[in-house]
Amino acid sequence: MAQKAKPNQKRNQIKSSRRLGILGGGQLARMLALRAHPMGIQPWVLSLNESDPAAQVTRFWVQGDPADPECLRPFLKSIDLATFESEFLDAALLARLQKQTKVEVFPQPHLMAKLQDRLTQKEWLVSHQVATAPYLPVSSQEELKQALKLFGTPVVLKQRKMGYDGYGTFILKSPTDLKKLSERIETNSHGFVAEPFIKFRRELALLVVRSRSGAICQLPLVETFQKNSCCLWVKGPIGRAPGFSAFAKRLTKAVDDSDYVGVMAFELFETSKGKFLVNEIAPRVHNSGHYTMDALATSQFEYHIRALFGLALPVPTLRCNGFAMWNLLGQGQTQSPQLYLDESTHMHYYGKSQVRPGRKMGHINVLDRSPDRAWKKAKSLAAKSAL
Amino acid sequence: MAQKAKPNQKRNQIKSSRRLGILGGGQLARMLALRAHPMGIQPWVLSLNESDPAAQVTRFWVQGDPADPECLRPFLKSIDLATFESEFLDAALLARLQKQTKVEVFPQPHLMAKLQDRLTQKEWLVSHQVATAPYLPVSSQEELKQALKLFGTPVVLKQRKMGYDGYGTFILKSPTDLKKLSERIETNSHGFVAEPFIKFRRELALLVVRSRSGAICQLPLVETFQKNSCCLWVKGPIGRAPGFSAFAKRLTKAVDDSDYVGVMAFELFETSKGKFLVNEIAPRVHNSGHYTMDALATSQFEYHIRALFGLALPVPTLRCNGFAMWNLLGQGQTQSPQLYLDESTHMHYYGKSQVRPGRKMGHINVLDRSPDRAWKKAKSLAAKSAL
Repeated sequence: MAQKAKPNQKRNQIKSSRRLGILGGGQLARMLALRAHPMGIQPWVLSLNESDPAAQVTRFWVQGDPADPECLRPFLKSIDLATFESEFLDAALLARLQKQTKVEVFPQPHLMAKLQDRLTQKEWLVSHQVATAPYLPVSSQEELKQALKLFGTPVVLKQRKMGYDGYGTFILKSPTDLKKLSERIETNSHGFVAEPFIKFRRELALLVVRSRSGAICQLPLVETFQKNSCCLWVKGPIGRAPGFSAFAKRLTKAVDDSDYVGVMAFELFETSKGKFLVNEIAPRVHNSGHYTMDALATSQFEYHIRALFGLALPVPTLRCNGFAMWNLLGQGQTQSPQLYLDESTHMHYYGKSQVRPGRKMGHINVLDRSPDRAWKKAKSLAAKSAL
Repeated sequence: MAQKAKPNQKRNQIKSSRRLGILGGGQLARMLALRAHPMGIQPWVLSLNESDPAAQVTRFWVQGDPADPECLRPFLKSIDLATFESEFLDAALLARLQKQTKVEVFPQPHLMAKLQDRLTQKEWLVSHQVATAPYLPVSSQEELKQALKLFGTPVVLKQRKMGYDGYGTFILKSPTDLKKLSERIETNSHGFVAEPFIKFRRELALLVVRSRSGAICQLPLVETFQKNSCCLWVKGPIGRAPGFSAFAKRLTKAVDDSDYVGVMAFELFETSKGKFLVNEIAPRVHNSGHYTMDALATSQFEYHIRALFGLALPVPTLRCNGFAMWNLLGQGQTQSPQLYLDESTHMHYYGKSQVRPGRKMGHINVLDRSPDRAWKKAKSLAAKSAL
């Protein structure tokens, strides 16, 4: 299995005021920045607007487009190390700039490239013997017909790049949908991956962290729930079924064998037959790991930063027997949200200047004696914030 | 005893993006700001330099001197509520500006005034039946002689205002010191308070928090250790001796009867005879409470903010059986400190641009099975950071 980093004084030592560049200014960047400060690391944020969630929490904000080489180059030159909050950046450009500026980007751009595309992501999983749904690349009506023939209905079509929170995903429920979807497919420049619709008992998520030092660890297993393809809640810890350990070991080995650096998020299906499959991968910190901010001794954001700087990874230690995370989604009813913070609410608000229906405005964590108790409490507390 | 706030939905509700003004930009302001962000509260910092610890962690930084009315007035006008990180501000000015701008300052300026002066602080304690060392005001050789006659040697002389970390404190060990100290006393504009030197078994600290809603609570009792009059470490939780509860009840009642709002820190002596006395009070968040950032479910900074906005106060819940906090003090050997962050180090670095001998550069928290185990580990880990 994974190679373990040996405890070593050097691996725990870090020069103060090192500059961590964060490409993007949303909530993931914000929570990375808030965690970097106390660790003695300066979070430098590159984003478009000074009202961005991450721009509000650091003096080291630089205005610019993380997709524009003319912004990226000087930004990279001014920092020690970079990471990103969205994997949908130009990986080739990042790899080139990394070489030019000698400032490293983690997770590595060539792995970002592989994992930002659902087709090469699937290939990566298969090459590492990790179970995932069967798939076919689809970019024409002909190929869609083939997928239909192979998988039957329903068929799930996922845009290869730039898809998130259900955007870019289509379901072909019967052959009569074929014509309608064919047009969409043939006019879409990204191309698609088709797979059979997996009947799942529930969705799970597992975060794996690998440090530059070679240390690697898994965070606790959680159940996740998506509403309209957008994460609504997470609860845990979830007991590991007998078959799960071998599956999780393969995930960890895939991360390790790729020399990946940082947090990698695996979204999983537990099928109605009790099998485990990887549904999607995100090469970054992830919504399914927000519970760690209160329920674990070390948050996913600290794990990610530790991994980037080659620091030791603490053994994941739960602070409670049950936890739940509930996303606070915009309802579009107000532009001045009222937050509910009772004694047991751990609030994580993102400070977004605009409330839009379905937009992730913040999340709450609740700890309790069991996952179900925490879940019930989180559900009722989240409903008391007016967004 | 203290009046308990009844759970009440309204008390838990807060409009997002409310503006909390923080007067001062040091580490206490920084940790308040870092805590305010996730709560959906904007931390607005008024301080002199953009390199100040708190200025680095918020976009809402305003350059200015918190002692200058020309800076304070517009700052107060731009925020919803203000607090301060040092009690040595002009309380009369703050009270006047509070009235003019209708922006409230907590803890209240008239209580800040009372507690920033060691003489009126003593009077406050006595009027609330809280045990403290006997004292005499001293501003002349004649009065010093009287104190010497009353208390014998050694006599401790504390400058009435602006004293901290041992600055402004003098010890008269024998009557021969009289002449030397007399000059100091008569040329000092602040005046002094004299008290007998208390033989203590150990120093303790207790934080009491009172919310605008009337809710009040005590945080766990800790032992503190001062080296050269500057806090070096804190450990806990400390078991409460039989006599302690009645003493702590009087402290809490004093806070409650004064309608104080915020965290109040009591530095205590446990005398060699097992009695408890208040040594000093700080009307603010305090170094002795930094352990709460990792060892309690809610940090002192969140308690303070909750108190200011009238939110409910969570029952203090320890996350471990033992904890220790160790200050990282500048040694003056380097301008590029190396931080040591092993698996069990909870680092809180302040990002100060200059290292000076004895300067508080950061602190670490360590959790373990007992206070002593945590203390030993914290001591050894703190020594591995090079400042």
